[in-house]
Amino acid sequence: MRQSLLFTKTRKEAPADEVSKNAELLIRAGYVHKEMAGVYSYLPLGLSVLSKIENIIREEMNAIGGQELLLSALHPKENWVATGRWDGLDVLFKLKDAADHDYALGATHEEIITPLVQDYISSYRDLPFSTYQIQNKFRAELRAKSGILRGREFIMKDLYSFHRDQADLDRFYDIATEAYKRIFERVGIGDRTFFTYASGGTFSKYSHEFQTLTDAGEDIIYVNKEKGIAVNEEVLEEETLNNLGVKRDDLEAIKAAEVGNIFKLGTKYSGAFNLTYKDENGDAQPVIMGCYGIGLGRLMGVVVESLADEKGIVWPEAIAPYKVHLVGLNSDDSEVKDFTDGIYLSLKERGVEVLYDDRDLRAGEKFADSDLIGIPYRVVVSKRSKEEGKFEVVTRATGETRMLTEEELYGDFDSDENT
Amino acid sequence: MRQSLLFTKTRKEAPADEVSKNAELLIRAGYVHKEMAGVYSYLPLGLSVLSKIENIIREEMNAIGGQELLLSALHPKENWVATGRWDGLDVLFKLKDAADHDYALGATHEEIITPLVQDYISSYRDLPFSTYQIQNKFRAELRAKSGILRGREFIMKDLYSFHRDQADLDRFYDIATEAYKRIFERVGIGDRTFFTYASGGTFSKYSHEFQTLTDAGEDIIYVNKEKGIAVNEEVLEEETLNNLGVKRDDLEAIKAAEVGNIFKLGTKYSGAFNLTYKDENGDAQPVIMGCYGIGLGRLMGVVVESLADEKGIVWPEAIAPYKVHLVGLNSDDSEVKDFTDGIYLSLKERGVEVLYDDRDLRAGEKFADSDLIGIPYRVVVSKRSKEEGKFEVVTRATGETRMLTEEELYGDFDSDENT
Repeated sequence: MRQSLLFTKTRKEAPADEVSKNAELLIRAGYVHKEMAGVYSYLPLGLSVLSKIENIIREEMNAIGGQELLLSALHPKENWVATGRWDGLDVLFKLKDAADHDYALGATHEEIITPLVQDYISSYRDLPFSTYQIQNKFRAELRAKSGILRGREFIMKDLYSFHRDQADLDRFYDIATEAYKRIFERVGIGDRTFFTYASGGTFSKYSHEFQTLTDAGEDIIYVNKEKGIAVNEEVLEEETLNNLGVKRDDLEAIKAAEVGNIFKLGTKYSGAFNLTYKDENGDAQPVIMGCYGIGLGRLMGVVVESLADEKGIVWPEAIAPYKVHLVGLNSDDSEVKDFTDGIYLSLKERGVEVLYDDRDLRAGEKFADSDLIGIPYRVVVSKRSKEEGKFEVVTRATGETRMLTEEELYGDFDSDENT
Repeated sequence: MRQSLLFTKTRKEAPADEVSKNAELLIRAGYVHKEMAGVYSYLPLGLSVLSKIENIIREEMNAIGGQELLLSALHPKENWVATGRWDGLDVLFKLKDAADHDYALGATHEEIITPLVQDYISSYRDLPFSTYQIQNKFRAELRAKSGILRGREFIMKDLYSFHRDQADLDRFYDIATEAYKRIFERVGIGDRTFFTYASGGTFSKYSHEFQTLTDAGEDIIYVNKEKGIAVNEEVLEEETLNNLGVKRDDLEAIKAAEVGNIFKLGTKYSGAFNLTYKDENGDAQPVIMGCYGIGLGRLMGVVVESLADEKGIVWPEAIAPYKVHLVGLNSDDSEVKDFTDGIYLSLKERGVEVLYDDRDLRAGEKFADSDLIGIPYRVVVSKRSKEEGKFEVVTRATGETRMLTEEELYGDFDSDENT
């Protein structure tokens, strides 16, 4: 993409009311646009990051047999009354139409998925299965000060699983856990994301959160980095620590943000909707459920918070909007401009994702924008590159600078493409 | 996909309150699930169709330079007050949060995109550009009896274009028109979809609709099929017919459903939000806008309505959930079952999208389901196929039946894949 054609631009300032680092950086760099407190639109660069996160999640959900669907955002009131959450969930948006029908705006989707699958489950032969959706949710959060980490409107993936018995749920829960670990690894925050024991509600002793270490986090977790063990405050008690084989003194309290959570729901929702199956003897049994969530915008915001430096955003390669930021200098010299255009086209032909800064700006402005936008590799093409056949390649995350020939340049990015 | 693993099933009956043919078929075949009047969820098969439509639209929008973004569904009240549509649009869903803030639920997105682009347009050098989103919209339709053709919640693509002057809008409008024609052609309804003159509002004499001939349509259009000309009732007048060079007597009145519409908005929304640019002389000028919509669910519903037959749905290849429905018979014979599994794996290895009916059902039930689901090619594998090395291939749309060898089968679907 030629940056001169991108309709968004970097901005010197985020809106004055924006207090979170993630939204401030994302707004200034042209990834998101703030519509009001807790509500953001995703601009082309931001949607590109979001789509890459989405595809990683989709691949991992499909790999464990998840069947993707898309649920409605408008929910009938009676479904929420059935679970006691019409009055019980304070962040639920409620609305009416002209005929005075009541709707809830999907704050989560147990109230839709549970009666939906009821139409397709009759016998034990229909179980187990799992199904997931990636879509908007809405919550009337009173405070919305964490940028895209906690919005009034946000995109989530929810996987729901359905089982005959607890043993089968336990089996799948472990499979889903491994898929989650792969997701955070692939997104680029595996090294700082911990599988964390949390309180489990009615059905199991623990649920689990995936917590990423970051100062922007709303949570404190207790971590033994060496053993890769973490617990949250709710379950910081002797019994849990004994179960995990750790001592309180070996745990470090660190700020973290939740990027995923997984629950054994048991019969909580199948009970509310009388979701049953016939067992081998023809007797009705309640379906056992699990649920597994990841907030996509939240994950994107956590990556920004935890990897950014004083110059701007630093994207991991797997979710960067582009792999290479090609910065053209001396563009008032038409021969240099043509030469740089040629490098751009050659990279594109090789399938490399390139943002090409072909704008008529000073080098300093271009470098500052490039640091702010945070694309993994910056390739600088100047009059001197043309004359000497050498290109400066800067790795955004480390600042490492290399001088490569044109051939080395293509080889470098080509080989990465194939990994 | 093995059909035995698909959690959805075909159903004998749609819900009693479902009166539209598209929703009745889509529910029975397991593509959508009705949550309430005008609100549907997309099941795995339905989401697959929707995603294919989405990708065709995305490719064509990208090809004309459209930059994709994702706008919020929650809109600030003041944006809708600014355009006079807070009180003026009767289908607008309105809601409040606990702090008594008012929101509109996006019924369309001019109220968000216009002030958004204001942050990025200052000079004539920033124009023209176009940007689009594919996402949910919400309208409190009083009647919702047309299945997924007119829902209270529905997925639309909107492209918005921004220009210095009318001439540039006119230039781009023609480009967008051609992109729309390619979309309907690729989706498989090009032969029955007409570029239709409609009333244009304040800025231009005409706007245009893309209307697909179908008995389920809510509109009547007046068509000269030979000349490929159509007008809607609003502009069925002497001046228009003279402009188009047709006579009233040469036009046939036919029922049709709108699948797309394009408008020259002019300054309608840029005026409301004071969206201007500085021209070459430094004078502020209003930005000229165009908008271009397609309802994805509506398009899917229209395809169902216009191509289905008495046995069920008939998908065009480009948007079918799978290309081949592999129906295994005699599956109680383990040798035949193994043989059929082998054919399934071979097709998958060749990149053919296959739904494999490996269920333990009678042939008649499998064929009825297959007709209802509407996948383009049915390949039947039975004990006899194994013995004789011949496979029955039935084309869903025409009923044409061919007997192919295993080699011919792979060749047939391979070559299609590459077109």
